[in-house]
Amino acid sequence: MTTRTRCHRVVSFHQTSHKFDNYMTKKHTPIAEIGEFGLIERIKKKCNEARLSDKIAKQIILGIDDDASITEPSTGMMQLTASDLLIEGVHFDLTYTSMKHLGWKLMVVNLSDIAAMGGVPTHAIISIALPAKISVEMVDELYDGILQAAQTYTCAIIGGDTSTSLGNTVLSATITGEAPVQFIKRRNGAKPGDKICVTGNLGLSHAGLKILLREKQRFIETQAPEGFQSQLQKYSFAVSKHLAPKARFDISTITSQKEWVHAMIDISDGLVSDVRHVCKQSGVGALLYENAIPLDPLVGSIAEEFNENALDYALFGGEEFELLFTIDSEYEQEISDTIPGVTVIGEINEDKETVSLQQTDGTIRNILSGGYEHFKK
Amino acid sequence: MTTRTRCHRVVSFHQTSHKFDNYMTKKHTPIAEIGEFGLIERIKKKCNEARLSDKIAKQIILGIDDDASITEPSTGMMQLTASDLLIEGVHFDLTYTSMKHLGWKLMVVNLSDIAAMGGVPTHAIISIALPAKISVEMVDELYDGILQAAQTYTCAIIGGDTSTSLGNTVLSATITGEAPVQFIKRRNGAKPGDKICVTGNLGLSHAGLKILLREKQRFIETQAPEGFQSQLQKYSFAVSKHLAPKARFDISTITSQKEWVHAMIDISDGLVSDVRHVCKQSGVGALLYENAIPLDPLVGSIAEEFNENALDYALFGGEEFELLFTIDSEYEQEISDTIPGVTVIGEINEDKETVSLQQTDGTIRNILSGGYEHFKK
Repeated sequence: MTTRTRCHRVVSFHQTSHKFDNYMTKKHTPIAEIGEFGLIERIKKKCNEARLSDKIAKQIILGIDDDASITEPSTGMMQLTASDLLIEGVHFDLTYTSMKHLGWKLMVVNLSDIAAMGGVPTHAIISIALPAKISVEMVDELYDGILQAAQTYTCAIIGGDTSTSLGNTVLSATITGEAPVQFIKRRNGAKPGDKICVTGNLGLSHAGLKILLREKQRFIETQAPEGFQSQLQKYSFAVSKHLAPKARFDISTITSQKEWVHAMIDISDGLVSDVRHVCKQSGVGALLYENAIPLDPLVGSIAEEFNENALDYALFGGEEFELLFTIDSEYEQEISDTIPGVTVIGEINEDKETVSLQQTDGTIRNILSGGYEHFKK
Repeated sequence: MTTRTRCHRVVSFHQTSHKFDNYMTKKHTPIAEIGEFGLIERIKKKCNEARLSDKIAKQIILGIDDDASITEPSTGMMQLTASDLLIEGVHFDLTYTSMKHLGWKLMVVNLSDIAAMGGVPTHAIISIALPAKISVEMVDELYDGILQAAQTYTCAIIGGDTSTSLGNTVLSATITGEAPVQFIKRRNGAKPGDKICVTGNLGLSHAGLKILLREKQRFIETQAPEGFQSQLQKYSFAVSKHLAPKARFDISTITSQKEWVHAMIDISDGLVSDVRHVCKQSGVGALLYENAIPLDPLVGSIAEEFNENALDYALFGGEEFELLFTIDSEYEQEISDTIPGVTVIGEINEDKETVSLQQTDGTIRNILSGGYEHFKK
């Protein structure tokens, strides 16, 4: 028996361009009705039936079907493994995040790590802890997003765990990739004199988050939540970047093959924080050029609406999932000739673990803090 | 700066034989003092410094140090991957579980799955979401338990994630193992006529849980929690089985090499529930012999204290982490000659997905339900 009930705690804005769904009007089948084994069967069916590329399918001897999955590693490849938690109230907010976006993002935050190492994805393990407010239909949508990312980036879902949660929704993904040893790019290879490059524009994800949080506030304050119309259209590019980021395999599959790319990382904590990770691991420092930081005009206009500095969004905003890498400076021209959408934003120097900014007026200032860190108050 | 504060919500019984600690009197450094990066550094140091066997150390090119870990799969081996969540309030209770036991158990619930497939462990990914009540010292103890299991069962901790949790403590582990393809034992190989075998005794874990829950109740009702003395000594064997179970690699490394072992699973949901998993996957049924079910005398006496049936503990109690496997009946004698502590408890038949019990009086009854299932009310 399924019931149509109002789900008071999980309501998303309805906005077609982002396919936000409004769970208030949707069928809501409690997971208790089908139980854990019913849920596992449903997830298993979805994941095992997902169309896989021949290359990946060949490696999966057994998906979700037993005590453990069985895979056959490719001969001569190194295995890369990345793992991330997404926790409701810490990493995401179901007021403005659809389950499909959430599933997509759960995959991408990990896939981006595999890209940053110079690998290509092979398989993923997904574990989910769900409170009673999450319906069977919402789990279906979560896996729609997960599988859409899996298919986009050629990755199989081969296992995981499900549980009730007494608190919030907790998602855990472990993603495995592979690479020939000589393609692997670590954080510790940056050398003084290297140029620092980034893909895409920066600050958009943070700008999108600001907009979503403002809409959430409007939503909370509205007198008629069922008729609420979010105003996200003109911010669409920023909001999409926050809710449905991309993993930059388009670039990493090129850079991983270049010997003169010395270190690589993805921007998840924020530009400065992640540059600092590279500096720390490589025993070097970095100078960023303010006037080279690639800012989308939308970041400027959103920062202006909030009376904030767009540059701060780019320097400290997290969850960009763009790639940052350092190259032998002799190849600066080759980068701009061969890889579109990559910008040289600075250089590596010998000022150990110091990240500085060359400002537009030519003066240099130390950048002391920024980037998101859990647990810190 | 560290502070000695009373931690009101996390108090364990003090019981030396189980090394239960009383967090009320312990140093409590809030994780906020060292932050996420400080915590990761601490965990990284602990895990990367753990002594590894040469075989495992050779496979780990890079542990916790970058966007992803790097491992080198053994040539000609299949990879096995298992993943389990442990969630406070659902899977464990910090009133009576020490962090060290918890870390150990997080590993064993997954390692047991690798054993059940016929593999040996290689590496693990551990992710933890922690509420503010969890101190740095408690995380240290958690990893002491994790690393003790890792060293006991020869497994390296190579990665994971940390996050704050707004709700309860959530732990996620993904453990990888390996096996030659011909050693892998699945659930789907049981054949009519096979004998069903189990390792060890059954019902102890559930009996231990009953005792712990009763002690918790006494603890809640006591007027002087700081002077509380738990009475667990005489139940020690059962309580240990629940808090610090073992993964049965001692048996699985033998059974995995025997062609006449047709199907294998570990008993995590409960005997009947797990026999049913084997039956379902193999398209067969099972008959269990009541008088053959191995019951420790302690299970009998604990069940009696609660006015309950010891057989029910053995049939339906979860988290035993013993192995259940089916063998060609011709090898029944060889099993009892060569593997100590294994009992033949029944046989596989053609009654699809039906689990029956031959009672001591010779009559046969269907066993309709039992075993733990999440989400079901």
